[in-house]
Amino acid sequence: MKIINCKFSKEQYPVFIGNTVLTDESIWKPYLKGNDIVIITCKQVSNLYLTTLQKTLFTYNPEVIVLDNGEQIKTLEHFNHIINTLLATKHGRKTTLIALGGGSIGDLVGFVASCFLRGVDLIQVPTTLLAQVDSSIGGKNGVNNAYGKNLIGTFYHPKAVFINPNTIATLNHRDFASGLAEVVKYSLIYDNDFYDWLEENIKLINQQHQLIIQEMIYRTIKIKLAIVLEDEYENNKRAICNFGHSFGHAIERFFDYKKYLHGEAVAIGMVIASRLSYQLEHLTIAEVNRLLTLLQQLNLPINLPEKITINKLIELMKTDKKNQHGNFNIVILSNIGMARLWRNITATTLKKHLEQIF
Amino acid sequence: MKIINCKFSKEQYPVFIGNTVLTDESIWKPYLKGNDIVIITCKQVSNLYLTTLQKTLFTYNPEVIVLDNGEQIKTLEHFNHIINTLLATKHGRKTTLIALGGGSIGDLVGFVASCFLRGVDLIQVPTTLLAQVDSSIGGKNGVNNAYGKNLIGTFYHPKAVFINPNTIATLNHRDFASGLAEVVKYSLIYDNDFYDWLEENIKLINQQHQLIIQEMIYRTIKIKLAIVLEDEYENNKRAICNFGHSFGHAIERFFDYKKYLHGEAVAIGMVIASRLSYQLEHLTIAEVNRLLTLLQQLNLPINLPEKITINKLIELMKTDKKNQHGNFNIVILSNIGMARLWRNITATTLKKHLEQIF
Repeated sequence: MKIINCKFSKEQYPVFIGNTVLTDESIWKPYLKGNDIVIITCKQVSNLYLTTLQKTLFTYNPEVIVLDNGEQIKTLEHFNHIINTLLATKHGRKTTLIALGGGSIGDLVGFVASCFLRGVDLIQVPTTLLAQVDSSIGGKNGVNNAYGKNLIGTFYHPKAVFINPNTIATLNHRDFASGLAEVVKYSLIYDNDFYDWLEENIKLINQQHQLIIQEMIYRTIKIKLAIVLEDEYENNKRAICNFGHSFGHAIERFFDYKKYLHGEAVAIGMVIASRLSYQLEHLTIAEVNRLLTLLQQLNLPINLPEKITINKLIELMKTDKKNQHGNFNIVILSNIGMARLWRNITATTLKKHLEQIF
Repeated sequence: MKIINCKFSKEQYPVFIGNTVLTDESIWKPYLKGNDIVIITCKQVSNLYLTTLQKTLFTYNPEVIVLDNGEQIKTLEHFNHIINTLLATKHGRKTTLIALGGGSIGDLVGFVASCFLRGVDLIQVPTTLLAQVDSSIGGKNGVNNAYGKNLIGTFYHPKAVFINPNTIATLNHRDFASGLAEVVKYSLIYDNDFYDWLEENIKLINQQHQLIIQEMIYRTIKIKLAIVLEDEYENNKRAICNFGHSFGHAIERFFDYKKYLHGEAVAIGMVIASRLSYQLEHLTIAEVNRLLTLLQQLNLPINLPEKITINKLIELMKTDKKNQHGNFNIVILSNIGMARLWRNITATTLKKHLEQIF
């Protein structure tokens, strides 16, 4: 078991990483204030881990809300549905919501926890690699709407995060790779040693070697926390976490979130951003190629689909919430392990650069 | 001009109280970060003060969103409507939302500001007495749903609050009295000197004497802040602000928010809570009678409508978010100027006490 203490300005909470977190009630006890516990999960995850967790938390007699699978639950309608269910079953301010599932469950339940009766306790139990290394850490939550992803949400920290690295064994190939894309991202923007470590351990990672995966999750979370702690409310520094995401979000949206998983789109986005970094003379072509190799070995896509024109890409990027009034801030790499913001870029400038790439 | 500095754990911001706040651009300048300003108001208030404020903020070229009047805008649908409007008009994270209006506008826009792109700047310009002395101060916001009031919301502070006490001249008689109910409440729970002051100045208050009203607003906000600062996130102490509200909310809901204004229902609720305080031997009958006189002089109702049975009242109170699993915490008075919580009361106990009163 590894434990990371997340210490923010106002709050602190632990992240437990180990294969007993779903079965050992004693780890949970300090974080459950009362008997008013609601587990919110999706169908898929409920089939895999709900019974185990219910058994562990047996003495608390937790209620359960099971939602549909996937990103489509991240809407205001589902937010409203959960809140009405909680009210109909007379849950009050002492309720603890447990988000058991991937990033979509974590984002939706986190948003509900922050707004239900102006805030109730939240525990995150991320079961996908993507959620374990990224979305469950840092307090961001949100839902999507017609204009894009996570446009409605808050910053709200859980009381604890419980991560069982073994849960990724039940992920399909693509979901696993999608999570790895974020792992690679964190190494690229902050920690070249970790990037080297990923390259060296690529075989064991793909084999999902238990201790290597645990170490990988641990190191990724440490990086994310280091960045988030420098900028809890995302004013500046934290923006580097969006490396590859401006393009990635646009690619996801072009296909209405149907063709690519988040991490797959981010992988393509990271390639574009790395090529921009090369073009701006920050990164060498050898470093760009190293990244292409790593992503391919991790079974991630690296090419922008032909269907997406540069104009369309830029148009979609304009409605990303990170872009104020049409200009862009693009995260690029100075080196492997060091990111910086390319600020206030006009659509024309961006277009010119992208045309040179493709 | 009076200025109160609200200093919270993480943030601090000023409350300006004076008759130049809507016309003096220099007071606003430090609190507007950029040119991306959206004023959100209701029809009624827009007819009265929008042109003035637009003229004052002319150089910022603010956009305007005008909503319907009254409490019915406090829904997730309106929340969603505002967010979609902001996205459709390409507003980003640097947007400042100005809530110009009564408590409903303040609560709805505050909630939007806290969730739009995970939080944008907010300025409160409360134009009703109720909003000036209560809802604009302390960071609480929210919307209603079928289960009750403010069940969905967050804690989120504005960058500044601008109060022009003269705006209450355009309130109708009942809205003015409704605000006075909250003023009386704050004196009852925290400051017996202020309660005496209210009794002494009742004539000038009813005449809306400018300096007296300004002083009254100032003193009420000071009390509210003192309470809120002891308990920013409403764990305990802040609960005394709900004096009269458990009953008041139930009364409002019985009539589907149509018969009584919030403060009117709270006035009746305060009478019930004061009678309970007498029954529990905390308050003298003379003190209860003093309160009845004061409320009547302020044109507030004091009697529970006959239509509402005690059973119905308790049933409605059970769905109030302050009540966990059916038991009640009722704010009562130890003395005039000092409140305390009567904790964890069963419905049976409460019923027994209420039957003795009525």
